[in-house]
Amino acid sequence: MSLLVTGSIGIDSVKTPHGKVDDVLGGSAVYFSLAASNFHPVRLVGVVGEDFPKVHVDTLAKRPIDLAGLETRKGSKTFRWRGEYQGDMNEAATLQTDLNVLDEAGPSIPEAFRDSRFVFLANTHPALQRELLGQLSGPELVVCDTMNLWIDTERDQLLELLRSVHGIVLNDGEARMLTERDNLIAAGRKILELGPQFVVIKKGEHGTTLVSADGVFVLPAYPTDEVRDPTGAGDSFAGGMMGYLASAGAWGRKELRAGLAHGTITASFCIQDFSVNRLLGLDRDGVLGRLREFCDMMRFE
Amino acid sequence: MSLLVTGSIGIDSVKTPHGKVDDVLGGSAVYFSLAASNFHPVRLVGVVGEDFPKVHVDTLAKRPIDLAGLETRKGSKTFRWRGEYQGDMNEAATLQTDLNVLDEAGPSIPEAFRDSRFVFLANTHPALQRELLGQLSGPELVVCDTMNLWIDTERDQLLELLRSVHGIVLNDGEARMLTERDNLIAAGRKILELGPQFVVIKKGEHGTTLVSADGVFVLPAYPTDEVRDPTGAGDSFAGGMMGYLASAGAWGRKELRAGLAHGTITASFCIQDFSVNRLLGLDRDGVLGRLREFCDMMRFE
Repeated sequence: MSLLVTGSIGIDSVKTPHGKVDDVLGGSAVYFSLAASNFHPVRLVGVVGEDFPKVHVDTLAKRPIDLAGLETRKGSKTFRWRGEYQGDMNEAATLQTDLNVLDEAGPSIPEAFRDSRFVFLANTHPALQRELLGQLSGPELVVCDTMNLWIDTERDQLLELLRSVHGIVLNDGEARMLTERDNLIAAGRKILELGPQFVVIKKGEHGTTLVSADGVFVLPAYPTDEVRDPTGAGDSFAGGMMGYLASAGAWGRKELRAGLAHGTITASFCIQDFSVNRLLGLDRDGVLGRLREFCDMMRFE
Repeated sequence: MSLLVTGSIGIDSVKTPHGKVDDVLGGSAVYFSLAASNFHPVRLVGVVGEDFPKVHVDTLAKRPIDLAGLETRKGSKTFRWRGEYQGDMNEAATLQTDLNVLDEAGPSIPEAFRDSRFVFLANTHPALQRELLGQLSGPELVVCDTMNLWIDTERDQLLELLRSVHGIVLNDGEARMLTERDNLIAAGRKILELGPQFVVIKKGEHGTTLVSADGVFVLPAYPTDEVRDPTGAGDSFAGGMMGYLASAGAWGRKELRAGLAHGTITASFCIQDFSVNRLLGLDRDGVLGRLREFCDMMRFE
């Protein structure tokens, strides 16, 4: 079941209470692809500038990630983000964003990718998400992410997008903002009315909630005191989830629930180290081993 | 296995986005007792003033709650609390507190209660908690609660108390404040060094975490959009947990985990209505029915 992701590829500089890194590999499509590739090959669509270090391309190429959709645009510069986490690290303070190439025309999906069956539209302007979706030939599962900026400034475009996706993954604050509901279950149900058949609400260290016509599924986060850098946790979650779903070739009640669990565990590795460092050393067995441990941490009679 | 609770008995006035009640039954020992009494008889120790309405005594007396330790003090007034919840209702704003009788000498534990085996010391001044504990003849399980005020102003007394209890139940903010650790697992482990053999961290709508030498156990909250008044949720949780433990007659790994689940479900009923209203209509079967539903909401393969 072919799996495609569209999203950002960036160069990050991050500071947390545990250290600091400069000019490291980042971006939603990167975290997603590395995470998903533990379970299923990934087709990556995104655009970088001429300055994008070849070493980062090599890093991605070592995994089952098809880079035919990675455009290196002449005369452009790669997206850059600088952020800092403090205290409980639940939220990043953005110190600097240089959109660079992300502020130009979006990427185009290669002909060979247009038959992709499972698709994740990582966060970007909802009009671009729709444009990318329009290049695909009737995918079986489309899941999108979004952010507070678009909920605030591009609500109509976002609502239009929501009518054409099967699922959405967003965080608790975004779910509340989108629906003007404080209660997250109520917010999830409201989002179902907007189009998607399922809603995954990410609550950071508090886990995830899945709301669909099948009811509600709740999952804590993997409890750990090893959190060095939360950057990419949400995209790693989505990658683990979508990679699992693509490997299962289905997204029914059973697969979605297991998908959330695989996403949760994948994200728990991501945050253990800066940038994508921990994801690079990870494989399917590593995820499954921790997943078994996680199940034991939730078991009661 | 005899179960005793010491704590406040009060008259509350509460406003939430869903309504408003005045002069209703409240207090930690009240919520705890009603919650625990679904699983096991409870011995209640607390003190009220002459103004305490007889109808509230009758309410408690209808359940298997032994009121031999309920002192009605002549010339004193009952503890009163007025609070308001806004938005997601995760935290109450206290508008008025009249300590009244709680600012006088504490209650004394009746002779007949001093052999109690399982004990919950609901939140009050840690010196009073220790004094009450000293009146008991070597209980088998002592669990305490506390609050930010005592962590801030009576840290030494609180640390002394922690050396003589088996378990503590506290919320996430208190755990962070007590240990100066942002990460809750790290905070839980730090509290284990202070004396208790287990720590239950309550995270409101985000569930609970149990940390002990046996490892970590995590449980989401019961997901519901029916939240009318969160007052008493924490004490109902503790009551459900301790009532279950007393009925099991043990507090090993297995019982503690199941205890957290019973507490979680009991609390989920408490918050569905104002004051103790929903708890009054509840019985063991009601809790167990929702517990089965909850298990299904967490099941994945």
